[in-house]
Parts: sequence; structure tokens; C-alpha cells
Amino acid sequence: MIEEKIKRLGYELPDAPKPLAAYVPALKVNDFIYTAGQVPFVKGEIKYAGKVGKELSEEDGKKAAAICALNCLSVVKALADSLENIEQIVKLTVFVNCSDNFTKQPFVANGASELLVELFGEKGKHARSAVGVNGLPMNAAVEIEMIVKVK
Amino acid sequence: MIEEKIKRLGYELPDAPKPLAAYVPALKVNDFIYTAGQVPFVKGEIKYAGKVGKELSEEDGKKAAAICALNCLSVVKALADSLENIEQIVKLTVFVNCSDNFTKQPFVANGASELLVELFGEKGKHARSAVGVNGLPMNAAVEIEMIVKVK
Amino acid sequence: MIEEKIKRLGYELPDAPKPLAAYVPALKVNDFIYTAGQVPFVKGEIKYAGKVGKELSEEDGKKAAAICALNCLSVVKALADSLENIEQIVKLTVFVNCSDNFTKQPFVANGASELLVELFGEKGKHARSAVGVNGLPMNAAVEIEMIVKVK
Repeated sequence: MIEEKIKRLGYELPDAPKPLAAYVPALKVNDFIYTAGQVPFVKGEIKYAGKVGKELSEEDGKKAAAICALNCLSVVKALADSLENIEQIVKLTVFVNCSDNFTKQPFVANGASELLVELFGEKGKHARSAVGVNGLPMNAAVEIEMIVKVK
Repeated sequence: MIEEKIKRLGYELPDAPKPLAAYVPALKVNDFIYTAGQVPFVKGEIKYAGKVGKELSEEDGKKAAAICALNCLSVVKALADSLENIEQIVKLTVFVNCSDNFTKQPFVANGASELLVELFGEKGKHARSAVGVNGLPMNAAVEIEMIVKVK
Repeated sequence: MIEEKIKRLGYELPDAPKPLAAYVPALKVNDFIYTAGQVPFVKGEIKYAGKVGKELSEEDGKKAAAICALNCLSVVKALADSLENIEQIVKLTVFVNCSDNFTKQPFVANGASELLVELFGEKGKHARSAVGVNGLPMNAAVEIEMIVKVK
């Protein structure tokens, strides 16, 4: 069970955020779920706020990325009933809020990627882009969007 | 009629831009249309140029995002014959050209998202990422790309 | 033959990079291949490092984009057996590592787009977003991700 693995790793799968007025946390079309960009919200607060390479270390960024990935999974679960119905994590785009001279976006993004592979094995191996940006919503350290194929 | 709604809201659906040499304004593959990134062009000129949080206010950014969304719809229409053939707005990626300390990308992106929901109702509710960037083509305030499912 | 055309244009199709631990260079799902973001690696080194509009000229950026496109093709080939199996280049997202005042991201992105159209003709005409960012992995000048439809 994926959710048990999440707990064994010391994480918690959050409840999916409530749908907002103007857009939805995730959308299912055919067998694919597109998530909205997820930030490192934990119980309604951004756990890692600031720029990686400035206020935050690359280790902070990596932990933030893992939380973003969990938040992506929570909104996927809400549409797929269970994480067991994930057939393949297809694609991640990882936006890292960083200083202009930061170049270790892949290290940060590994916080998400490594967790997904640990949870899903081969089904968790995805294509990925990791880029730096100069600003994110609520000063989040990381924002991640995911495309998932479900049964 | 969606196009009548656009007029009633005080907007104008622009003509789709002419295809350029090296890429196309939108591409249809199976039942999906992927738009190219659209900037706030109005009659051949960028209506909102500059960085949100610096030369431009967040309200300016929001208006720019609405224009980007209309421009996305214009290129979708060119491939789908009519906006009535849109089955679902699937995904928006909203890039906001902003100062390093700007954190209200979702407010800006709502300019696009709220318009789409107003026009399309449930079919307009999409997954969305909103991120800041330090530069956009022709200094546009916003660039938006869209994935749409059509009949 | 596409690979012969690549040589005639003075380029070389690189070997696909080895799969990394946490993610894969490209993923095939149904008839689509999603590439990971590719940087201008040539024989294990970033050929164009730095920010366009600062250390690098827009011409440098354009050349970097062409290399990113070739690297995307190399990882597509690894999954599609042959570049002849490409039915359509669907979508490119081009991230340009640039100074805050750089606005010619489309010029840079044309380095990829023009090459693809030269190689694939109509099949190479894609939707595209080109945006500036303040940082990329290993200080690469450009990062490109691609969605391709294959037979």
C-alpha cells in the first residue's frame, strides 16, 4: 500500500485542498490527471518560504520539493480514489524559487523524484524538468506540477 | 454562444495570429489542442509590457492575463472551428514577468482563470500553474499556454 | 533519413544520456513521448553556460537551443527506435537563462524550432512557449522539454 509506505518514510499524505473558485487542484481527462502547481503547504501554511540559495539552503529546497510531491499525490488521490490506481507518474515540472546564481535545481527536484521512485518503483520514474524562477506564489520555495496516468 | 458572452463581458475575441515560420500558434493532436505561449497582444501591440511588482501593478497583470487567455482562445478557435467545440479547458501555465519579491502570481493568473470559468462554466475549470519569471518575450507582463480538449 | 539531414546540417545526434537514479530522460505513454528538460550538453559538458543578455549573446543562446533540441531528439530516438517514427513534434517549452532585461526569448528558441522544421518539415511544426528564467541547472543557457507523437 502506497499510503502505508508514505507513513513508514515519515511523511503524511495531506488532505486534498478544497477546490478554489477559478480553477481546480487537479483535472482528469481520459486516463490522465493533470495537477495544478502545488507548493509546500503543510496544514494551511507554507512550510518553506524564501529563495533557495539565499534565505534557504538546497537541503531546505529538497525537503520542500518532497512536500510538493505529496501535495500533488493528495490531489491525484482525490480524483483517482486511491494511489494504487496510479499506473505511471509521467511528468514533473519543478520550479525552484532561487537566487540568480543558483544552479542546483536538479538537487532540489530530487526531493520529489526520489520520493516518487521510493513509493512507486518503476511506475514512479518520470520525465522531469527542473528550472529556477525569481518568484513563486506566497514566496514558496518550490512549485511542482505533475501529469499522472491512472487505471 | 461563447463569443457573444465574450462581447457582453466587454472583451473582443481577436483574430488568430498568422502562423510564424518556425512554429505554429496552436497544434491539434487527437482531441487535444496545445497552444503556443500567448502574450497580451492587442492589434499587434503588447498592451501590458513590464514587470508586475515594478512598472506594473498586480491589477495590470490580472488584465494582461485575461488578454492572454483570449488570445489562447483565438488560436484554439482557428483549429476547432468554433469555441462551442471546446469540451474542457484542461491546463493553464501562467508565467508572470515580475520583480524578485512579487508573490501574488495566483492573483494575476485569476485574470485568465476567472474569465474562462465565466465563459465556459464547469468546462472552463482547469488545472493551473502560476509562476514568476524574470523575463518574457517583448517584455510582456504575462505569457499563458493552454491545453484544451475539443469534440 | 532524418539522421543524415542532421549530419548534412553540420550537427551530430548525440547518444542518449544514461537513465539517472530518480527520473528518466524521456517517458513514452500511449503514442506520446515526454522528454525531460534537456540542457546544451555536448560530450558530458555544458557547451553554453551563463545568462543570455549578460555573459552570453542571443546568438549563443540560439546555438544552445539547437543543441538542446538535438539532445531531446536523442532521448526520443532511444524510446522510438528511430527518428523516422516521429509523427509530430507537438510542443516545446523553452526556458532561457537570462538577464532581467532580456526580451528576445523567441529569437533564442528559434534555434530549436528552425532546426526541427528543417529536419521534419510539417511534422516538425510545433506549439511553443519561450520564457526567461533566472537560473538553470549547471548554469545552462537554455533548457528545453519536448512532447512528441510517435507511430
